[in-house]
Amino acid sequence: MPARLDATSADFADRFEGLLHAKREASEDVQTLVAGVIAEVRARGDAALIDFTARWDRQTLTPATLRIGAAEVDAATAQCDPETLAALDLAAARIEEFHRRQVPEVTDYRDASGVRLGARWTAVGAVGLYVPGGTASYPSSVLMNALPAKVAGVGRVVMVVPTPDGQLNPLVLAAAKRCGITEIYRIGGAQAVAALAYGTETIRPVDKIVGPGNAFVAAAKRLVYGTVGIDSIAGPSEILVVADAKNDPAWIAMDLLSQAEHDTSAQSILITDDDAFADAVAAAVDRHLETLPRAAIAGQSWRDHGAIVTVRDLLADAPALVDRLAPEHLELAVEDPDALAARVRNAGAIFLGRHTPEAIGDYVAGPNHVLPTARSARFSSGLNVLDFMKRTTFVGCDPAGIRAIGPAAVTLARAEGLDAHALSVALRLSAAGTQT
Amino acid sequence: MPARLDATSADFADRFEGLLHAKREASEDVQTLVAGVIAEVRARGDAALIDFTARWDRQTLTPATLRIGAAEVDAATAQCDPETLAALDLAAARIEEFHRRQVPEVTDYRDASGVRLGARWTAVGAVGLYVPGGTASYPSSVLMNALPAKVAGVGRVVMVVPTPDGQLNPLVLAAAKRCGITEIYRIGGAQAVAALAYGTETIRPVDKIVGPGNAFVAAAKRLVYGTVGIDSIAGPSEILVVADAKNDPAWIAMDLLSQAEHDTSAQSILITDDDAFADAVAAAVDRHLETLPRAAIAGQSWRDHGAIVTVRDLLADAPALVDRLAPEHLELAVEDPDALAARVRNAGAIFLGRHTPEAIGDYVAGPNHVLPTARSARFSSGLNVLDFMKRTTFVGCDPAGIRAIGPAAVTLARAEGLDAHALSVALRLSAAGTQT
Repeated sequence: MPARLDATSADFADRFEGLLHAKREASEDVQTLVAGVIAEVRARGDAALIDFTARWDRQTLTPATLRIGAAEVDAATAQCDPETLAALDLAAARIEEFHRRQVPEVTDYRDASGVRLGARWTAVGAVGLYVPGGTASYPSSVLMNALPAKVAGVGRVVMVVPTPDGQLNPLVLAAAKRCGITEIYRIGGAQAVAALAYGTETIRPVDKIVGPGNAFVAAAKRLVYGTVGIDSIAGPSEILVVADAKNDPAWIAMDLLSQAEHDTSAQSILITDDDAFADAVAAAVDRHLETLPRAAIAGQSWRDHGAIVTVRDLLADAPALVDRLAPEHLELAVEDPDALAARVRNAGAIFLGRHTPEAIGDYVAGPNHVLPTARSARFSSGLNVLDFMKRTTFVGCDPAGIRAIGPAAVTLARAEGLDAHALSVALRLSAAGTQT
Repeated sequence: MPARLDATSADFADRFEGLLHAKREASEDVQTLVAGVIAEVRARGDAALIDFTARWDRQTLTPATLRIGAAEVDAATAQCDPETLAALDLAAARIEEFHRRQVPEVTDYRDASGVRLGARWTAVGAVGLYVPGGTASYPSSVLMNALPAKVAGVGRVVMVVPTPDGQLNPLVLAAAKRCGITEIYRIGGAQAVAALAYGTETIRPVDKIVGPGNAFVAAAKRLVYGTVGIDSIAGPSEILVVADAKNDPAWIAMDLLSQAEHDTSAQSILITDDDAFADAVAAAVDRHLETLPRAAIAGQSWRDHGAIVTVRDLLADAPALVDRLAPEHLELAVEDPDALAARVRNAGAIFLGRHTPEAIGDYVAGPNHVLPTARSARFSSGLNVLDFMKRTTFVGCDPAGIRAIGPAAVTLARAEGLDAHALSVALRLSAAGTQT
């Protein structure tokens, strides 16, 4: 049974605190193993990649067959159902359109002292995209990770995807093709992350690695961080639905299950102001579970991590709870979702109103589906174009400009005991005729 | 002697590669010790903070004296030299002005399908600012870390600063006061990071921790990352000066030393197109070192990690080298710095022209002085207002909107084997009269 919490009960604060801090994932300690894999790839390059791929993916590769060529991509794409390809195209076009609005502008101005100031943005040079193999190999994630990089102007996007026992989802290759990715390697695991970070004879290193992966991939990304950039380490998926009694319980129940079906560690929470509605949703979940193909996973997630919280008044009481949960996905299935949204600070993405199920955002809405999990929406954002760009600030002084602001720099540098700092400014000031 | 590299010599590629990958810092393994400190603070709260502070800072505290009160801040500020306070005010005003331009705008629009899309930004709720004690206790860093948080609208900024043997730089408290920080604790090290991340009886936890620190602080920040956000882990400072022969060698030499004086692990590199100028700068460095107060540190940094690279043509040859070095600070002391800057992709901050020494950016220019080190300018940016905000995307469909884009979501969800995703959309579609 999912937990039932009542905001008006005496033990609510404690139980809600428990919900916030419950650990959902067993953390595997794979650090040592992964560090060894990375060291091997750094030392032996392609040969190590080939050995690890033989061992873990049961695939015999050579340096020449590490890469998946254009013919293989085309053949895979030709195998895909045309309707699915059309849906992929629609999704890609909408994702691109949304992300294009994130491209930042240059700032370049002279201030009142005549000092030129500004900031400009450039794309990361080369990005590696990790795509999991097996059942978690989602073409939608290829779009969500690759398209912001493309919109940012990243010149080289490299994809790695393991092909255990030779299996590879053709839609993943079709999605890569739609994103214009031409450099694809059939490798995975920590060895693929190491190859992207340090390079091998065949694979040139990248500057940043993004994309989801299992515990080995996550550990490898942590270990190579610094040598390259990484995206955040994603935890299991979460949804928080705030719903009043005017919703169809079957709809809300399916929304809760759409996160629960991802993973037994996923978490679905409902906040409502009506006990009878809460009961109706719980019953609808049980009904849906009778027919849902992934009922085993979804049911376990719902029983172990699901929760229903009842409050007196949604607008008054829900926002504070939402902010503490800081959910990855927040669905506001109420009459006036904007009023509620305006009171919420912490959420990765918000789905407004009764006709906006979270799943629409997983595929075709346009905003990114890579979002902060495990309460990290308190301090971080979903994947976006800025993750594939970096800002360089600039300053330009002429003699008048340094006369205006230089003396204060000299004073502060001296106060901090950094005389070369002070002198590097003072030398220009004395050339410009200012005493310091 | 600093390394001398000639871009036209046969061994240049190898030697430049060596410069790129030379390790400048001995990495201390403090992980286990720090994990123990964090566990103690989580278990025993204030009592652990007080014990660690007695042991390492030789200070006897109580829960009541952990906090530095307003009277102590005022008294410290009153001790400061008025000219220095005025310089601090000028710096603060300029930093605020520059950072205010970074505050992002809301996006909120309806697309061609009538789907409402957008993104809004909210400030991180509470931020902890670590300020080192002792000689690295810089008031300028208080401004650079705290003011972007204030501009972002962070409601609670908490400062921690150790006071070993009771020592505390009064200018640090004056800087905190100028930034409007009223919650300050006299604690440091891993224990202070743990208190900020997990909270104690006296200190409420924060959502994100920023600010420089020693190896213990850096290790603690890595360990609490995920529970809270952190800024990037800063490495030793770096400057790359690109200068033609028309510069005064004494100015360029002082600019190189202004980074070298930070730390024996700091790195200063000159790229020039004139051998005689290179010699003149090297000689000027040696002359400056005869009188510079921090000559021992600056001299060792210059000898161990400094380098002078000569190339044939600055505009043609320097940008590729700059991009590979991806320096924290890039000074372009040439006639037309914009032409060179336009060809550079990777740099934390650029200082344009002969009258813009890097030190002006450390204090008063306005852009942030917390910048990516150790070649991470390839994939990351300096500290800025967005580091204290997070983006929440939103989607709103009405029945017409979901009819327009829902069928593609159903198709993709089914292709990925996620039936609850498909059904959560399909339920709305059938209510809206669309077959799926």
